Amino acid sequence: MVEQDTQQHLQTVTDSLESGGTMQIKYLLNGALPAQDVARLLESSPPKERRLLWDLIEQKNEGEILQYLSEDISVQFLKEMDTEQLVAVTEQLESDDLADILQNLPETVVAEVLASMTAQDRSRVESLLSYPEDSAGGLMNTDTITVRPNITIDIAFRFLRRHASLPDMTDSLLVVSRSDRFLGTLPLTKLLVADPDASVREIMETETTVIEADAPASEVAQLFEKMDLVSAPVIDEASGKLLGRITIDDVVDVIRDEAEHSMLSMAGLDDDEDTFAPIMQTSKRRAVWLGINLITAFIASYVIGLFQNTIDQVVALAILMPIVASMGGIAGSQVLTLVIRGIALGHIGAANTRWLLNREIVVGFLNGILWAIVVGALTAYWFDNIEIAYIIAGALIINLLFAALVGTLLPITLKRLGIDPALAGNVILTTVTDVVGFLSFLGLATIFLI
Amino acid sequence: MVEQDTQQHLQTVTDSLESGGTMQIKYLLNGALPAQDVARLLESSPPKERRLLWDLIEQKNEGEILQYLSEDISVQFLKEMDTEQLVAVTEQLESDDLADILQNLPETVVAEVLASMTAQDRSRVESLLSYPEDSAGGLMNTDTITVRPNITIDIAFRFLRRHASLPDMTDSLLVVSRSDRFLGTLPLTKLLVADPDASVREIMETETTVIEADAPASEVAQLFEKMDLVSAPVIDEASGKLLGRITIDDVVDVIRDEAEHSMLSMAGLDDDEDTFAPIMQTSKRRAVWLGINLITAFIASYVIGLFQNTIDQVVALAILMPIVASMGGIAGSQVLTLVIRGIALGHIGAANTRWLLNREIVVGFLNGILWAIVVGALTAYWFDNIEIAYIIAGALIINLLFAALVGTLLPITLKRLGIDPALAGNVILTTVTDVVGFLSFLGLATIFLI
Repeated sequence: MVEQDTQQHLQTVTDSLESGGTMQIKYLLNGALPAQDVARLLESSPPKERRLLWDLIEQKNEGEILQYLSEDISVQFLKEMDTEQLVAVTEQLESDDLADILQNLPETVVAEVLASMTAQDRSRVESLLSYPEDSAGGLMNTDTITVRPNITIDIAFRFLRRHASLPDMTDSLLVVSRSDRFLGTLPLTKLLVADPDASVREIMETETTVIEADAPASEVAQLFEKMDLVSAPVIDEASGKLLGRITIDDVVDVIRDEAEHSMLSMAGLDDDEDTFAPIMQTSKRRAVWLGINLITAFIASYVIGLFQNTIDQVVALAILMPIVASMGGIAGSQVLTLVIRGIALGHIGAANTRWLLNREIVVGFLNGILWAIVVGALTAYWFDNIEIAYIIAGALIINLLFAALVGTLLPITLKRLGIDPALAGNVILTTVTDVVGFLSFLGLATIFLI
Repeated sequence: MVEQDTQQHLQTVTDSLESGGTMQIKYLLNGALPAQDVARLLESSPPKERRLLWDLIEQKNEGEILQYLSEDISVQFLKEMDTEQLVAVTEQLESDDLADILQNLPETVVAEVLASMTAQDRSRVESLLSYPEDSAGGLMNTDTITVRPNITIDIAFRFLRRHASLPDMTDSLLVVSRSDRFLGTLPLTKLLVADPDASVREIMETETTVIEADAPASEVAQLFEKMDLVSAPVIDEASGKLLGRITIDDVVDVIRDEAEHSMLSMAGLDDDEDTFAPIMQTSKRRAVWLGINLITAFIASYVIGLFQNTIDQVVALAILMPIVASMGGIAGSQVLTLVIRGIALGHIGAANTRWLLNREIVVGFLNGILWAIVVGALTAYWFDNIEIAYIIAGALIINLLFAALVGTLLPITLKRLGIDPALAGNVILTTVTDVVGFLSFLGLATIFLI
């Protein structure tokens, strides 16, 4: 329903743009649709339309919409604003969203935006800017509600009632000392059932998940998933001071990005690849990946070239040779994908590599035998030649064993070397299965046929 | 840190098992480690070790650990229990987790477990069992805290204080009529700052996200992401009655599974593929995928076979032909991955297919020209033959154009036909880029060289 809605709105907008009418679009963009839907609509539009739509949004609505836009798109819009506009728009943003956006703008612009803020807001945003975007500090927000441990529950209630509203996703109050050291959390669910005369100290939880500001975002995501958290306090490791809190909505984005990262990387695509990026930008990014893969292809061709004379004498080899290479590639990429996921989930590491390798070698061998028989039989029938059938069967088993070996060890090794296995894994794997495929098939043929 | 911890514990456990000592393991599994970590440890262990570890866990701890185990593993353990054990263990589970697990057990066992429960619990679980696992009804929990609209905030507070504790992830009270019809939500953050004399009706939010019990899980996930929800009420569409609520922790699992689904499907792997599944099970699953891909490989070989005479006369063609096919495959799978993600995010649909196709054709053409020049030049140099260079350049452009066309339209068409594009897309794409690659290269060669 959500997808269909976007597509439907998009159709309405496209039709209106074509017929030159902007009344209905303006109505949709400025109030009729919630900000989240407008953001989706912008993300689903090609660059030119996106530009047009953005210009139809009233300035007072821009801030809320920016908050839901993916970062590369929002930065695009912000870069084109003058400082005055920028200040007006960024006033509406939460401190963590603002910090993320500022990190992508030129320094002079950042300085001007910061100068326009109140001292308190500025120091908040500046402290957020000091952490990398993909760390706990970069994910956190500073809108915490803090209480002291020595007050009673009843006073805590009265303290809360003095607020006009509490920040979204507030599921607990954070208990801090006079010097802002983090002491524990007081979940609202406990607060609500507590004896009014008890002190916060008696009720608060101290064995709570605390996140250090320099923890990587991926670790934060794993903690949230593991502990089923809605929010968690972020502290400065050295001083134990409370810096802010991370909420599940930002963590969900990390989880989604992380899970997508592997799939996109395996195809050589950028994480923040905009589906509707302009042609030249897209062409350049893709060209790099094609260039890298071309090297693989030429290496494979070079190996085939070594056996030029053999192919010249038995042309059937040229017809059959892609089968061995392609089966190895498929088998290898299955293992590779499984291991990359296992590493990402923390299931695979030094302690179980040996077991996994053993299993994959056996699985590769069993499937090698099975498909060697099938391919051998088909080959014998097709070319009426039992020798070539034996040769392709042997080559297939060899290549599936190599595929299992490389598919298992390559991502683990790359990870240890600090190289992203999802990005480099498939290219290297394909090079190996192509080379081993052609080498074993044409090599065996040269030995036994010629 | 999280991953390293698991690997470290795993190493300790493996070492202890090898040296025959179980004291330390028992200590780790029964209290020293939180249930979430024990579940991770089990998931990261090969089947035999997993079995051994499970036997070392005391029955009183089993329920909590089961809750965090991935479903196929927990079902494995439960299937081996007798009814008495099963009843003891399942008593500790939340109703939605229990319903998920029961759906995978034989009917006679389910009946016995249900018979052992109190009437109230039974009717809860039975109502959950009536919804498919991947629907809102299957995701929901029945532990809602409900209030009537006509009571005052002060009375609501007193009502809450009568509870010993509130369910986890309670971020709002659900307001229902006398006949259980859902009326609105009262977020705790609003309750805490409200005037005690106001009525619930005055404070409650009525424009709130409500989920129908038969909504698919993927739609629930999109709603949670879009609206930044912690929990949402589930209602029966026909009667408007409140059935339960869905919490973000269950939705995070859906989001993680969905994002992984595409990557795993593209390699022909099952979503619930256990990294440490036994050899025969793994071999069978993989064999199916290899078999399907073998058909692709034989189709490609058949196409090459059509040009047997041409290859026989110019053996250089056999050496170069994999380059054209492989470049097409890489380019196509980039487009395919991007479009599959775009569809999953709801960014791509009927309204922008034409724009996307245009862009991809242009990108394919630009990259075709670029790499045609590079490959042509390398070929001319390698084989000292300008004719073959022209031919491979032409074939490359043709194949990259087809890759763009098929990579864009194929997933959109498959989606419309109700076929999972992530699963079938790559196989069909590779077949096309192989066939077009060999056909264009060898075909052009036959026309111009022979």
